[in-house]
Amino acid sequence: MNIPRGLIEFLLQEQRFFIATHRNPEGDALGSSLALSMALESMGKDTVVYDRDPVPEFYRFLPGNGRFTSSSASLKNDRLPLVLLDCNEPERAGLDPVTFARSAVIDHHETLRDFGDIKWVEPRAAATGVMVYGLIRELGVDITRDMATNLYVAIAIDTGTFRYNSTTPDALRIAAELAELGAAPAAVSEALYESWSRGRFRLLTGVLNTVELVGDIAICVATREMFSETGTTGADTENFPNFPRMIGDIKVSAFFREVEGGWKVSLRSKGDINVAELASRFQGGGHRNAAGYTVKTDLKRAKEELIKALVKIQGVKVQ
Amino acid sequence: MNIPRGLIEFLLQEQRFFIATHRNPEGDALGSSLALSMALESMGKDTVVYDRDPVPEFYRFLPGNGRFTSSSASLKNDRLPLVLLDCNEPERAGLDPVTFARSAVIDHHETLRDFGDIKWVEPRAAATGVMVYGLIRELGVDITRDMATNLYVAIAIDTGTFRYNSTTPDALRIAAELAELGAAPAAVSEALYESWSRGRFRLLTGVLNTVELVGDIAICVATREMFSETGTTGADTENFPNFPRMIGDIKVSAFFREVEGGWKVSLRSKGDINVAELASRFQGGGHRNAAGYTVKTDLKRAKEELIKALVKIQGVKVQ
Repeated sequence: MNIPRGLIEFLLQEQRFFIATHRNPEGDALGSSLALSMALESMGKDTVVYDRDPVPEFYRFLPGNGRFTSSSASLKNDRLPLVLLDCNEPERAGLDPVTFARSAVIDHHETLRDFGDIKWVEPRAAATGVMVYGLIRELGVDITRDMATNLYVAIAIDTGTFRYNSTTPDALRIAAELAELGAAPAAVSEALYESWSRGRFRLLTGVLNTVELVGDIAICVATREMFSETGTTGADTENFPNFPRMIGDIKVSAFFREVEGGWKVSLRSKGDINVAELASRFQGGGHRNAAGYTVKTDLKRAKEELIKALVKIQGVKVQ
Repeated sequence: MNIPRGLIEFLLQEQRFFIATHRNPEGDALGSSLALSMALESMGKDTVVYDRDPVPEFYRFLPGNGRFTSSSASLKNDRLPLVLLDCNEPERAGLDPVTFARSAVIDHHETLRDFGDIKWVEPRAAATGVMVYGLIRELGVDITRDMATNLYVAIAIDTGTFRYNSTTPDALRIAAELAELGAAPAAVSEALYESWSRGRFRLLTGVLNTVELVGDIAICVATREMFSETGTTGADTENFPNFPRMIGDIKVSAFFREVEGGWKVSLRSKGDINVAELASRFQGGGHRNAAGYTVKTDLKRAKEELIKALVKIQGVKVQ
């Protein structure tokens, strides 16, 4: 990892920071933001930690999660320097790019946009948390147990607790160091995987009942009716698209979640099948094996279009 | 870790070894045995790798798994030196202790028996694989990709891919080194968790549909009819009892599987609830958080008896 010198200087020079991450934040976005905020504050700096959306219920175990605000009021009178984490354009965070005098981007997604005075993008990093870990070390800050826990969660989530392709030796080594510094792997896993509401569990059962196997593709669905019957929301479906991947001969898992006026489609693939490329055809994005997009058609048509695109672009079999 | 000097000497002095592990072997038993066999053979030694039971189908991706034999014919004329792995009494491996002239035990379970000329038992090691890794390093053997994969699987299985309490910083650090040496975390996880048959997945869906929540207890069921409808067997239910543990306020998960003349009950608990103690009341056994027993009654009665015992012995709430 090659941390840009300019980024270190920027963090050392400025006194107040507006740390922001993408909407619908998950563990990497949340954990990286909180750890960086804690590190900068331990250096005597001030930070505002921003997400337009609230911290999902099941991430409220993250130390310091109360730091997150969904208000950008602090930007009214002040053009704070921005640190944008785990995404690379302010629009993904629900922010207007012109609001900021100076800005730094720290992200492990492939950058397409040209935003950021300082850009640090490492597509090969397992998580933004891996990068923030390196950055905090470089800043010479002692990593506290709370920072360690936030960074551990960031890495755990983006590697599927060390199960995905993104699980590099570096990710495991840093996880070991974070565990040494006080992150508790078993407690984190219990918080992440064994703290579901009963409604969420019933929703999963309902979703698994909808699984259709079309050749190499598994398709499943959560309708608004299913959410209202189980008292759940879209945030409760995190990780659902991964379940059908358990089937050995499935190459792509597609999860359709009903949203206002259409469907949010989450794709998970195995091996070489690039669902990011496919999602981009539908104005979505993501990583090679995990991507998504939104469509404004009915479910039947949305499924048909996806299957057609998978066959055409990725050569997936449907029989 | 403190490797007994006598163990190193034993491995250096002897020329042929009978490496054995417990019946119904899982990833730690299998991976540790194979890695040690490969290491000793790379030193010019001969090894027989023994398990009384066959390598389960879904572990046949382990490099060199064909080394396993269930025949002890090699012991007929020769009193080979024994290396007993991942257990500490030959009976657990289906072997007669008097068969061996010299013996070494390498295990991370707490030892109760007094078997073994050389005993190396580390109850705090995450897996026997962690110990065998240290031993191979100490022997000065270069760890090949195949050894690394076997040891990675050993550690992955015994830590639930780094989710259980046993996930120490050491386990993560060694996993990082093994990944560096060629173990492929994602390929291992895919082989372990994403190689289900379609029938097994349908069986899981069916089982989740039966989940009843009785206070702190989740109960689910697989009937013989469900097995025959999905073309599956009891072996396909490995890990099923863990699914209802996802629910945050569930303290005990009980899975009833229909067998000849009754029901096999698998229990999983969280925290302090000791299901081993409970299982022993029904002539079963296991560990504190994972145990089981068999009953010869009908399902309704079997459930009632379990609930009554849980309330009485463990103070579990049912309302």
